[in-house]
Amino acid sequence: MKPLDDQQTTTRSWFESLRDRICAEFEAIEREAGSDASFVFTPWDRTESDGSEGGGGVRGQMTGQVFEKVGVNVSSVGGTFSPEFAASIPGADEDPSFFATGISLVAHMANPHVPAVHMNTRFLTTTRRWFGGGADLNPTIPNDEDTAAFHARLRAACAAHDPTFYPRFSKWAEEYFWLPHRNVARGVGGIFYDRLEDHFDSHFAFTRDVGEAFLDVFPQIVRRRMNQPFTDEDRTKLLEYRGRYVEFNLLYDRGTLFGLKTGGNIDAILMSLPPVATWS
Amino acid sequence: MKPLDDQQTTTRSWFESLRDRICAEFEAIEREAGSDASFVFTPWDRTESDGSEGGGGVRGQMTGQVFEKVGVNVSSVGGTFSPEFAASIPGADEDPSFFATGISLVAHMANPHVPAVHMNTRFLTTTRRWFGGGADLNPTIPNDEDTAAFHARLRAACAAHDPTFYPRFSKWAEEYFWLPHRNVARGVGGIFYDRLEDHFDSHFAFTRDVGEAFLDVFPQIVRRRMNQPFTDEDRTKLLEYRGRYVEFNLLYDRGTLFGLKTGGNIDAILMSLPPVATWS
Repeated sequence: MKPLDDQQTTTRSWFESLRDRICAEFEAIEREAGSDASFVFTPWDRTESDGSEGGGGVRGQMTGQVFEKVGVNVSSVGGTFSPEFAASIPGADEDPSFFATGISLVAHMANPHVPAVHMNTRFLTTTRRWFGGGADLNPTIPNDEDTAAFHARLRAACAAHDPTFYPRFSKWAEEYFWLPHRNVARGVGGIFYDRLEDHFDSHFAFTRDVGEAFLDVFPQIVRRRMNQPFTDEDRTKLLEYRGRYVEFNLLYDRGTLFGLKTGGNIDAILMSLPPVATWS
Repeated sequence: MKPLDDQQTTTRSWFESLRDRICAEFEAIEREAGSDASFVFTPWDRTESDGSEGGGGVRGQMTGQVFEKVGVNVSSVGGTFSPEFAASIPGADEDPSFFATGISLVAHMANPHVPAVHMNTRFLTTTRRWFGGGADLNPTIPNDEDTAAFHARLRAACAAHDPTFYPRFSKWAEEYFWLPHRNVARGVGGIFYDRLEDHFDSHFAFTRDVGEAFLDVFPQIVRRRMNQPFTDEDRTKLLEYRGRYVEFNLLYDRGTLFGLKTGGNIDAILMSLPPVATWS
């Protein structure tokens, strides 16, 4: 892998520091629930197909009382795309060199009233450079208050940067987080964005704000719902709902595909899958 | 859908009669275990994208004591492939009309010592006509006696038709029932075949014999293992192993892809997924 330049090291550091703050906050929530659960961090290395060093990452995972399974992965990988894959990546058709750094988080919650959540932001470098990411809320039992709070906070993060961002990116999330084979949405949406290029400083600032918005709003939702009583029937619904999440991730998710195509760490890629899911 | 010709009605009838015999045998096993579980059959219709009638099928499912979840689906669908999909199907590039009839079975067993199993045989018609199918054994705790019995019975079915069949088709199963992202086999193999064309009578006879072999050998394996004691740890392994099965079916399985691409019945297509699976 080539030595990193300033933009690559700066973005990587941001994703790592965001990871540290999120993990600390999630562990604090576990403490409030009387649990001493904490994240276990496992580093992994990526090897290029020619055997050379291709970066790596750190997979963080916690099994708690509130967070039944939460994975937070920061990966910073680079090398050369395979020719078939390079053809589908902007700026990689003539020179297949790439570097990608990002944070990816999925939380599956024990209480069916607490929504599952996904957040991912990333910086990609080929002969072009761009940011992408998103966050979406996946409640088994949708609650208007939580859905509104989640969207409002992301809307505010977007509005500080560009008035077109929230309308465009929330619509993109609606289209992206969709299960065509069942003709249903995967959750209650959020934002999805990609290919924010040409203005590194402002797009990096926006990407940081998406992380800040997530870190602000999701813990509020968790604390509001984590002690709400639930029935066996609610829990049954939760496990069925997680089946839809598995279907989305294995059939459609771009991050999963990207990881599998670029020889990423399999445990990190599939860390998004729920601890347990059912199909009736 | 066009009216069916003799080959199409004859093959469809075979798949339906095989389904009836398999379901009766599986219900008999449930009786031996003291359960009164029986199959529930749900017919479904398929509609072409232009709204015309496109065939359908019957989904059979049983939740028992021995068979934690078993699905047997016979589908007979026809119409016109979408242009993109037609390009990938033999004989459909110039005329996208098709008819497909087949049986598809997946059994997830309650006792970790009883292997899960998959069996599918089918007859496809475009401007060409061919048989395909296969069967493979998926034990959580592999047992040489069961694996040997399963392969021996399929080998015998193959040998009665063509000395090259078993070597070719068992190797094809090894390659096909493989999880490249984990670099592990999905189970202990079996046979996989496709594109057996030009000799309807002999290939239909072979396809019938694959069904007969399955109906002969799998119930023997089930009866041998169904009362074997198991530990909580064995059951934990079973649920993890089922996670690999989910990954295979959603990431790679051709039948799943075919169903999703041709607007099949979603409950029938995903009936193969286990009742419950875990990811650590």
